[in-house]
Amino acid sequence: MEISNIINLEQGESIEGFFIIKQLQCKVTNNNKKFLDLVLGDRTGEINAKLWDLSSEDETKYLVGKIIKVRGAITFWQNQPQLKIERIRLSNKGDNLNVTDYVQAAPVEGEYMYEKILEFISQIHNNDIRALVETLFTESKEKVMTYPAAMKNHHSIRSGLLYHILTMLEVAEKLSLIYTYINTDLLYGGVVLHDIAKIYEMDANELGIVSEYTVEGQLLGHITQGVKLIDNTAQKLGIDDEVSLLLQHMILSHHSEAEFGSPKKPMIPEAELLHHIDLIDSRMYDMKNALKRTEQGKFSDKIWSMDNRRIYKSILDNKPL
Amino acid sequence: MEISNIINLEQGESIEGFFIIKQLQCKVTNNNKKFLDLVLGDRTGEINAKLWDLSSEDETKYLVGKIIKVRGAITFWQNQPQLKIERIRLSNKGDNLNVTDYVQAAPVEGEYMYEKILEFISQIHNNDIRALVETLFTESKEKVMTYPAAMKNHHSIRSGLLYHILTMLEVAEKLSLIYTYINTDLLYGGVVLHDIAKIYEMDANELGIVSEYTVEGQLLGHITQGVKLIDNTAQKLGIDDEVSLLLQHMILSHHSEAEFGSPKKPMIPEAELLHHIDLIDSRMYDMKNALKRTEQGKFSDKIWSMDNRRIYKSILDNKPL
Amino acid sequence: MEISNIINLEQGESIEGFFIIKQLQCKVTNNNKKFLDLVLGDRTGEINAKLWDLSSEDETKYLVGKIIKVRGAITFWQNQPQLKIERIRLSNKGDNLNVTDYVQAAPVEGEYMYEKILEFISQIHNNDIRALVETLFTESKEKVMTYPAAMKNHHSIRSGLLYHILTMLEVAEKLSLIYTYINTDLLYGGVVLHDIAKIYEMDANELGIVSEYTVEGQLLGHITQGVKLIDNTAQKLGIDDEVSLLLQHMILSHHSEAEFGSPKKPMIPEAELLHHIDLIDSRMYDMKNALKRTEQGKFSDKIWSMDNRRIYKSILDNKPL
Amino acid sequence: MEISNIINLEQGESIEGFFIIKQLQCKVTNNNKKFLDLVLGDRTGEINAKLWDLSSEDETKYLVGKIIKVRGAITFWQNQPQLKIERIRLSNKGDNLNVTDYVQAAPVEGEYMYEKILEFISQIHNNDIRALVETLFTESKEKVMTYPAAMKNHHSIRSGLLYHILTMLEVAEKLSLIYTYINTDLLYGGVVLHDIAKIYEMDANELGIVSEYTVEGQLLGHITQGVKLIDNTAQKLGIDDEVSLLLQHMILSHHSEAEFGSPKKPMIPEAELLHHIDLIDSRMYDMKNALKRTEQGKFSDKIWSMDNRRIYKSILDNKPL
Amino acid sequence: MEISNIINLEQGESIEGFFIIKQLQCKVTNNNKKFLDLVLGDRTGEINAKLWDLSSEDETKYLVGKIIKVRGAITFWQNQPQLKIERIRLSNKGDNLNVTDYVQAAPVEGEYMYEKILEFISQIHNNDIRALVETLFTESKEKVMTYPAAMKNHHSIRSGLLYHILTMLEVAEKLSLIYTYINTDLLYGGVVLHDIAKIYEMDANELGIVSEYTVEGQLLGHITQGVKLIDNTAQKLGIDDEVSLLLQHMILSHHSEAEFGSPKKPMIPEAELLHHIDLIDSRMYDMKNALKRTEQGKFSDKIWSMDNRRIYKSILDNKPL
Amino acid sequence: MEISNIINLEQGESIEGFFIIKQLQCKVTNNNKKFLDLVLGDRTGEINAKLWDLSSEDETKYLVGKIIKVRGAITFWQNQPQLKIERIRLSNKGDNLNVTDYVQAAPVEGEYMYEKILEFISQIHNNDIRALVETLFTESKEKVMTYPAAMKNHHSIRSGLLYHILTMLEVAEKLSLIYTYINTDLLYGGVVLHDIAKIYEMDANELGIVSEYTVEGQLLGHITQGVKLIDNTAQKLGIDDEVSLLLQHMILSHHSEAEFGSPKKPMIPEAELLHHIDLIDSRMYDMKNALKRTEQGKFSDKIWSMDNRRIYKSILDNKPL
Repeated sequence: MEISNIINLEQGESIEGFFIIKQLQCKVTNNNKKFLDLVLGDRTGEINAKLWDLSSEDETKYLVGKIIKVRGAITFWQNQPQLKIERIRLSNKGDNLNVTDYVQAAPVEGEYMYEKILEFISQIHNNDIRALVETLFTESKEKVMTYPAAMKNHHSIRSGLLYHILTMLEVAEKLSLIYTYINTDLLYGGVVLHDIAKIYEMDANELGIVSEYTVEGQLLGHITQGVKLIDNTAQKLGIDDEVSLLLQHMILSHHSEAEFGSPKKPMIPEAELLHHIDLIDSRMYDMKNALKRTEQGKFSDKIWSMDNRRIYKSILDNKPL
Repeated sequence: MEISNIINLEQGESIEGFFIIKQLQCKVTNNNKKFLDLVLGDRTGEINAKLWDLSSEDETKYLVGKIIKVRGAITFWQNQPQLKIERIRLSNKGDNLNVTDYVQAAPVEGEYMYEKILEFISQIHNNDIRALVETLFTESKEKVMTYPAAMKNHHSIRSGLLYHILTMLEVAEKLSLIYTYINTDLLYGGVVLHDIAKIYEMDANELGIVSEYTVEGQLLGHITQGVKLIDNTAQKLGIDDEVSLLLQHMILSHHSEAEFGSPKKPMIPEAELLHHIDLIDSRMYDMKNALKRTEQGKFSDKIWSMDNRRIYKSILDNKPL
Repeated sequence: MEISNIINLEQGESIEGFFIIKQLQCKVTNNNKKFLDLVLGDRTGEINAKLWDLSSEDETKYLVGKIIKVRGAITFWQNQPQLKIERIRLSNKGDNLNVTDYVQAAPVEGEYMYEKILEFISQIHNNDIRALVETLFTESKEKVMTYPAAMKNHHSIRSGLLYHILTMLEVAEKLSLIYTYINTDLLYGGVVLHDIAKIYEMDANELGIVSEYTVEGQLLGHITQGVKLIDNTAQKLGIDDEVSLLLQHMILSHHSEAEFGSPKKPMIPEAELLHHIDLIDSRMYDMKNALKRTEQGKFSDKIWSMDNRRIYKSILDNKPL
Repeated sequence: MEISNIINLEQGESIEGFFIIKQLQCKVTNNNKKFLDLVLGDRTGEINAKLWDLSSEDETKYLVGKIIKVRGAITFWQNQPQLKIERIRLSNKGDNLNVTDYVQAAPVEGEYMYEKILEFISQIHNNDIRALVETLFTESKEKVMTYPAAMKNHHSIRSGLLYHILTMLEVAEKLSLIYTYINTDLLYGGVVLHDIAKIYEMDANELGIVSEYTVEGQLLGHITQGVKLIDNTAQKLGIDDEVSLLLQHMILSHHSEAEFGSPKKPMIPEAELLHHIDLIDSRMYDMKNALKRTEQGKFSDKIWSMDNRRIYKSILDNKPL
Repeated sequence: MEISNIINLEQGESIEGFFIIKQLQCKVTNNNKKFLDLVLGDRTGEINAKLWDLSSEDETKYLVGKIIKVRGAITFWQNQPQLKIERIRLSNKGDNLNVTDYVQAAPVEGEYMYEKILEFISQIHNNDIRALVETLFTESKEKVMTYPAAMKNHHSIRSGLLYHILTMLEVAEKLSLIYTYINTDLLYGGVVLHDIAKIYEMDANELGIVSEYTVEGQLLGHITQGVKLIDNTAQKLGIDDEVSLLLQHMILSHHSEAEFGSPKKPMIPEAELLHHIDLIDSRMYDMKNALKRTEQGKFSDKIWSMDNRRIYKSILDNKPL
Repeated sequence: MEISNIINLEQGESIEGFFIIKQLQCKVTNNNKKFLDLVLGDRTGEINAKLWDLSSEDETKYLVGKIIKVRGAITFWQNQPQLKIERIRLSNKGDNLNVTDYVQAAPVEGEYMYEKILEFISQIHNNDIRALVETLFTESKEKVMTYPAAMKNHHSIRSGLLYHILTMLEVAEKLSLIYTYINTDLLYGGVVLHDIAKIYEMDANELGIVSEYTVEGQLLGHITQGVKLIDNTAQKLGIDDEVSLLLQHMILSHHSEAEFGSPKKPMIPEAELLHHIDLIDSRMYDMKNALKRTEQGKFSDKIWSMDNRRIYKSILDNKPL
């Protein structure tokens, strides 16, 4: 039996493969028997799975983050595929697996993106801005290499934060050619730093899976944490006050509306542009994902992160997603 | 005495020059004497002016749209410059004036922009989209050459609508390089057509000055008018239904929120992008204008079209506006 | 065993009868056995039903829209009646059934209502209004005879759209006697056309059951579709521009608030009145239905379509519902 | 010189006539001279007037509610007519004037409307409802004969409250013929009582001009005052509890939304209908007034009481207003 | 086996004890077997329980409000403790139980709180206020001794209403020392009466468990009921009008916002203060409860009554809850 | 002629006195003559004043913050008192004036309040909280001695910030006696620091008059500035992380709602209480001021800072304000 990818599974099929455990709950049936309710993942997607007739050993052996080998059958109930597990075991050294092959990740390597972002930073002419941004970015390297940009929704994948920053920098570069009065130094700086404090707001493992929000993250939030981070580092480095203040303002205002966490609206054009670039990149990411799961001529399911809109995939010739 | 431009006027100065009358009201002082309260304009800006001690002939001679020659003194009351008119006459043939020199206009010639937009349209590969967009755009040529994009606020200048469309096309071109799954044909089409019905929503003269909204404009609005326009023209040309429907949806949803006039939110990525490009171009235009009138280290007045925000002009080295 | 109607079913009873399948889902129990979860209907109401111990043949044999004969027992769990199916078969020719006996429908025949509405139309004095309304109404005859006015909520029954239009016309007639400055031609026209595009917004079968929204319905919505329909037909018929524009405005504004889909508020008294008549007729319908299911001195369940209000049925002498 | 009516005044005209003083303020010009700024009224409308060059006697002689004879000239500044007073004196007995000829009033006599409403009340079958409504209505007779329905906006004219109630009763009668399950007794009762406590919320004189809100009116409001009034009177008369409660609920909920003063939404169909009838009658009144002041093919000024909408007067043949 | 308290139950434990039945539903498993789904309570908390393999006698024997003796095992599924009942019987006289030992109640005896509140009332200097408040409070004694302050949320425990009033009086006393211009008579009066009509809005038994809202409670609500109660009683006692009006205003405005049921905002300082004291006492109660169930350094679950906030229990030395 | 206080001025009176210039504008009459439009103040209030017939010397001599001696007459136009200046001169050394006698100030001396607040701080048991709060408070001494708490509205008087803090501490002390589980150390700390960054948000002179918001104040706001200030100082002093974080959270959440500038809602009970104490103290201050200007039995003008409510001054025996 060939090894299967989640995205290709079809109803009725019997499959065999390795998957990572992304969620796991021990539940009880109405006639009082325990079973495991799991979410399994690989690089191509996720699938719900059930392990019935649980042994007491099974109950403790399987944990989130472990890779398992399973055999089973694919059924479709209520329009959702589900894997009924027939055989299961933990992977072992003999399987020779690389854990990163089993989580969704940015389409580009972290190391490559990290270098590209450093290149953008090196194009910042203003010494104070460049020094501050470079310091904050390189000091975050360990976490930023694998962190997602969010717990759910847009860019909630391994290295999603880097991917979000890099794409935004590319947009910023293009828009600076059109709106030529924009201070590109500030704009690049704002893009790199706008979500940097997410690494202090959430706890994620090296697979880019967020386990929870930190205490500081819940009490202050990444916007306030980001403002403080810039303020502290700027003081340590002796950065020009105006530079530090403008970057703090850009982070503070990048959600634009008070109800979305920004107590101040953008008051400089670079802050305004940062807000739109952030929003465009999130929306284009979510729409792309929704379209991947939708047939031509049909609407997607409701997308929570876009006010429950359904996205339509037209019957025109579409470009590759 | 040298001919003066409004943007250079300084307090206390005596000036002489030609200006166009943009607004005019006959008012009465509290001790019951009539005077004219005017807004005068030239290519560089606008200034409030007063003509005291009005003759009964003056009351009817001066009209909106006329060019006058005036002599007077600049005073500053309540932080706003004001021109006290000492001498005034209508311009005449001997003055050899070109009326378009006296209104604010897009920084590029209408004819040039018109051609550039046609070039963008010619890059649309889908025959139905290109035919529909080209027909609608060229049929609007007479009005679109001079129409502003709005009565007040962003791009409310001569040929402002063309300027808004062209800049948005340039942004659309750039973003298509980054979000490569976007259908550029639809996006270009949506940009060209998104505000095209403004020429039926507002009555403007050949100077790009809007006198009023049309009856249809008030009862339906340019979004609904635009949807109908596309629908009708597509039927006449025998355009593919899906193409017509998608462009109608893009026009219908381009304000994104029901409270701003869009009963449907964007459901295709090209509609989502169109909304953001429209918003960015409006905001960057308004911010640029606000910054022109603001000193470094200071905040602008409140900008009505941006929720009464004040815009800050930083003390960093700024690029030319 | 006598044939049963849903509205009379009582707990503990064993029943036998014919019902139409209105919804159907194949589900699985926690110990992994399949069963059918159904909604069955007849002319008097709906009931949830379960078919346990499913054969593989059963899984494919029963479909939405089919009439079945069932025997079973009524139980009440969590205050809702439920039918446990003991025997089941598809109806056949020998049963001699009329499918329309098994769906809820307007209390008056479609043909009768259609004629009554034509009578109202014939009372329109203005030739342009009458021609336009008559053409649009008669061209829709096939669908309008059976369409419901909505997928859920008010008038979501067979011929519900006709019933809604006719009752509104009767209200319009009465109010025109009191607010005598109203243009009755416009008001009648607006009533007939206000929801006419629902036949293009939703796909419903000849039983008045809506299967889904159309693509155009989702991308544009019945209000925009209705405006286009009037515009196109008016052009074809050479209708007076003012007449066409006013009717388009009435359709556009009949939900009154942007958040409910009307980008323009009513600006003529006939549009204002149309909005209220539409709302009154929907509310009176929903309240009547709620009261049917409520005992005197008690409150109904929460009514979703009325902001989750509970309706009270007083202990005064009530008129028949 | 003929006696003039306000509705017929034209620019440039010299006029003479009797008017009532509806508002009056003593102001000072910028060069420190006092003048009177007045609003004058007659049965056909209102006009702003100025009395320059004020004597110290003039300052105290003219009071709100007095009738004056004036001669002067009509000017139009900023699109509003204004009367420049040249001669002025108080009216005297010799003028033989009837003060009610100088205020706007309902188009029907108070006494007639009062009797018509009593007729409606006599049609209430339920003894408790009829007794309660009749008692409350007849006990209010003195004030209700002349009170307006509001300080500003709809029905803010002499006997406006009676006119509003009577028209609503006529609408209620008609709608009861269509929605036959409605309890007409409750509906008539609710209509008569819904605004009855306005006579305790506002202080108005016998001309129907409101001078101010009462202390209780400001601290409680007419809705809460009305509920108490019904409760107290029902107790005194020994009215059935359910009847009293339902009428209290109808008064409490007749504005329908919390933000408009109703803490409970309608929970019986009669309360729902009362809310719509109240709203329709207010809107039809305001629209009619707006149309009176508007030319065919034009839009009215913004109407504050209708969310600043402009009303359009079509070029179709309109019925008399 | 020792008798257990709910708050101390731990996973895996076998327990035995007496509990009161607070909720009870008969449900059916997916393979069609009945079971009882219960909420059991004692003085320390609540726990979900299941009784599988139900006899037909069990189905009718156990009722809400009954005390049962059960033996069973504690399991934790989905982070919530659950009791699997192994043995069950109704309590009997031989068990010698006091039912009030099995419901949550205010931390102080009802009789004591009642006397303390009377003491506060006796400190009111104004005779009219004191007479009115004392009459209304003592007339409510029977119900007020045990009523909760709400069906769910803050103070929804036996004698919760008394506890809420008493704590608020203590706060009122303190704040009167700081804001010395406050009329303490009014403030005390307002505190005692602000929720007094809850005894007519809800039906609760002598254990302080609310079964449902009354008809009047649903149609009018405790705020309107309270205003009427004060008005009626004040009239009977011949209380000064201003006193009665001010207390009615305080009750009417104590939720402060229309959307929370107050059609008028506070217009006297005592009403403003009453609103804040009410809100503070509710919030401090809910926070205290949330903290009891939360470990140091952790966040509580989302608290519905506080806009779904999570409450944080710090790692500083905390005071006893 | 006796020296006058503003609060005692009566219409028609001729007065003489010293006042401070709080606002000043040079305006022009409609017949083109300059005059000074001033707001004059003393310890008891403010009054509008006009200086007509301006000499060119006058135009530059009088400045905001200067004390002048004037003679003039009090007139009342449009219900507002106004001073028509007849004689005016700058005060000089010979007048022997103390500038602080001419501005409104807190009712207690700054030095006294400062010491009282230090006493409260000394009662904080937790060493880290006490050290941090004491440092931040004493480092702000110079500005905090005279700063108002706002530019307009509540406590916008000399030393208003100190007065606001001290009153809030007194409330905090009292409430801690009732809600005994509150951490008083945190609560006191939060009260002292909640508005401390206002001294960096606004520029005020030593008279407590705010001239403008600072650049940082506009770009970040006092809440974000306060969070940074605590963070920085805590790091310098080596304060416990939890202490610093909790105080930052209290400052961040003290406006409670995102729309009022708090991106996080209170998540610890001390933060919740801080929010209410702040609101109560502002409201009680504004209400007290409104009542001072209101007669018994009357309503105040609309108070902008309290959603345009009018405040009622009852006819009961009122305590001194």
